[in-house]
Amino acid sequence: MPPTPAPRTPDASRRSERSRRAILEASLELVGEAGFQKLTIEAIAARAGVGKQTIYRWWPSKAAILLDAFTARVEDPEYAAGLPDTGDLAADLKTVLRATADEFTDPGFEAPYRALAVAGAADAELSRQFAERLTGPGLAAYRDRLRAAREAGELASDVDLDLAVALLTGPFFQRWLTRGGPLTHAFADALVDTVLAGLRPRDA
Amino acid sequence: MPPTPAPRTPDASRRSERSRRAILEASLELVGEAGFQKLTIEAIAARAGVGKQTIYRWWPSKAAILLDAFTARVEDPEYAAGLPDTGDLAADLKTVLRATADEFTDPGFEAPYRALAVAGAADAELSRQFAERLTGPGLAAYRDRLRAAREAGELASDVDLDLAVALLTGPFFQRWLTRGGPLTHAFADALVDTVLAGLRPRDA
Repeated sequence: MPPTPAPRTPDASRRSERSRRAILEASLELVGEAGFQKLTIEAIAARAGVGKQTIYRWWPSKAAILLDAFTARVEDPEYAAGLPDTGDLAADLKTVLRATADEFTDPGFEAPYRALAVAGAADAELSRQFAERLTGPGLAAYRDRLRAAREAGELASDVDLDLAVALLTGPFFQRWLTRGGPLTHAFADALVDTVLAGLRPRDA
Repeated sequence: MPPTPAPRTPDASRRSERSRRAILEASLELVGEAGFQKLTIEAIAARAGVGKQTIYRWWPSKAAILLDAFTARVEDPEYAAGLPDTGDLAADLKTVLRATADEFTDPGFEAPYRALAVAGAADAELSRQFAERLTGPGLAAYRDRLRAAREAGELASDVDLDLAVALLTGPFFQRWLTRGGPLTHAFADALVDTVLAGLRPRDA
């Protein structure tokens, strides 16, 4: 949950926000360097230049810190804008899935995100927060783009949007989490082409 | 890794095999009751009626015990026979995915399997063993059934079998691991129908 500091003077609020950001950045850096198991509140505090008590006051666990760190990314305007819509659904989905593949092969992103996915898989309440704050908005962006394509006649009128999103993201997620193969642009492209082949209007 | 006891008399071998089976069964029961975090070697030993040292001698970790327990299931003749082949691919895939959905909604199966998936996601070496011994044979069974369908002309001749398997299993895996929705027969059926729609011969 986000820290909710008591009312303060403007200067104290600015310092508080600066500390919060430093803690979030430190947590992502450290989990990328050492992994989640070895991540400690002490190390985050030292890297962020804050006291341990500051962290304990704001977050109940290291998984909660990481969740906030990723949520801050999702609220980034670049992410919040949704999927591109150039009018060419296949091209837009390939753009997004290729960029996602790049992200998931970058250890600085991959390691903390894996730690969070693992923690979420093991814990139902964290799983709920993870879905609500992180994966949910991402999947909704796919659904919106597919809905637009359905309305434009690029997809069959009876396409189940949730299932379509699952077909685009599930095989990617499975390959990533189980280390089932490389997340290449070729994989992203083949996934998009094969899924869309089954969702096109039947008489087109 | 499987225990490799030193050569023994026939009676000692039988006792040893009986202990091994008791330990595997106890580990599945206990993880279903208490979860992976609370699973201890002590509790497994007590339930199986063996000494702790027996377990420590045969397995390096509780995850390794669970992996052996599930591997024993996969080697069960019922599983090893592969997917059914009645000549109707959609029907056969629905039979298997419905049965899998039932299995994954049974806490006695789901809890230990989740524990193993989580441990595998966190640990690259365990992930490799998990794929080699457990998920790999399962995915190969799907691939074999799809290859037979491709040869029978039920699927397009250029279908990528690995991608087809990923489309059938990835959305299921994602929904299960992230608790994204219920694993119902309706979901299994819709998944099969939508995936196959994209893989049929184009001029059929």
